[in-house]
Amino acid sequence: MTAKRSIGVILFNDFELLDVFGPLEMYGMAPESFDIHLVAQSGGQVVSRQGPKSVVDHEFAAAPQFDLLLVPGGKGTRSEVDNPIILDWLCTQSKNAEYVTSVCTGSALLARAGILDGLGATTNKRAFEWVASQSGEVSWEKQARWVEDGKFFTSSGVSAGMDMSLAVIARILGRDAAEQIAIWTEYEWHSDAGWDPFAKIHGLV
Amino acid sequence: MTAKRSIGVILFNDFELLDVFGPLEMYGMAPESFDIHLVAQSGGQVVSRQGPKSVVDHEFAAAPQFDLLLVPGGKGTRSEVDNPIILDWLCTQSKNAEYVTSVCTGSALLARAGILDGLGATTNKRAFEWVASQSGEVSWEKQARWVEDGKFFTSSGVSAGMDMSLAVIARILGRDAAEQIAIWTEYEWHSDAGWDPFAKIHGLV
Repeated sequence: MTAKRSIGVILFNDFELLDVFGPLEMYGMAPESFDIHLVAQSGGQVVSRQGPKSVVDHEFAAAPQFDLLLVPGGKGTRSEVDNPIILDWLCTQSKNAEYVTSVCTGSALLARAGILDGLGATTNKRAFEWVASQSGEVSWEKQARWVEDGKFFTSSGVSAGMDMSLAVIARILGRDAAEQIAIWTEYEWHSDAGWDPFAKIHGLV
Repeated sequence: MTAKRSIGVILFNDFELLDVFGPLEMYGMAPESFDIHLVAQSGGQVVSRQGPKSVVDHEFAAAPQFDLLLVPGGKGTRSEVDNPIILDWLCTQSKNAEYVTSVCTGSALLARAGILDGLGATTNKRAFEWVASQSGEVSWEKQARWVEDGKFFTSSGVSAGMDMSLAVIARILGRDAAEQIAIWTEYEWHSDAGWDPFAKIHGLV
């Protein structure tokens, strides 16, 4: 029996819906192992890029240290890369988190905060150049569904977050548990981190 | 240029996250064509099965007629099938909606309300028997990613909602638009409604 882990999902206005709720669907299938918390700079509500609003569970100042961080992407990352409060909070949390994960352009925030320096990482294929420009100290991989480097997992765009999260679950709970969750959610898991037809479609390879 | 359509998503406590936000990710990629509204019996907040809370845009009494209805599943459907207020609201909205769609056990609510009588439909493979027991007047299809019958689209479990929603988008905006959205979201669209390996895994065929 593994210990229950807390997941801290960082939200900001114009976050991308599936970047957040795809992974949370997967983690949420093992409620005995994961506890989900939505966190933002201020309390209240956060508006997604698509319109639907989520309720913040903790503002930064009142948030505990989380075991697993989930950083989504979305249009909002374009301005949040210049927000020192978010970048500082990510730095502080990342130091002691057991796993640090991002989906889509969420890796732009981690990169800009210097958290990915010296590591391999990937991101959304359509926004690849902009994300890569946030740090020259990261080994950006153009073709990957997701990249694992120690405790850091960064995924490609939007739906890739579900595949990556199942890989995190496999690391923590074992491969069988991840496969069971894929079956329960009737999801065809791309469990090969090298599967990435979108790199070619977007002209990166 | 097609008219902008309003999407009314019906929420209730213990709704399943991906049933809602997978489809909304897809529709949300065409904001010039779709307008998203979260609706519930009462205003305020609704708690998902996994914990995260969403903000209600309209309560039933104040909701306009929507062009497209999206009914998610989740643990909450087990009690909501006995809630006449939800069933009545679904009946009224379904009469004049251009499209009526459900994901996972959301079809239990439509079936119980009598909305699917005489039609073909499908649902979550793990909860198939319980959903089918909600109405004997529906042609329940055991193996299908989703079923289209006129303006009614019902999908299999959880992640099947994304495939079905892309099919709805293809019907409205054309196949090319749906394929473009799949590429933007780096999603491998299962565009064949007959693709359903989960029926066998769950012993239905």
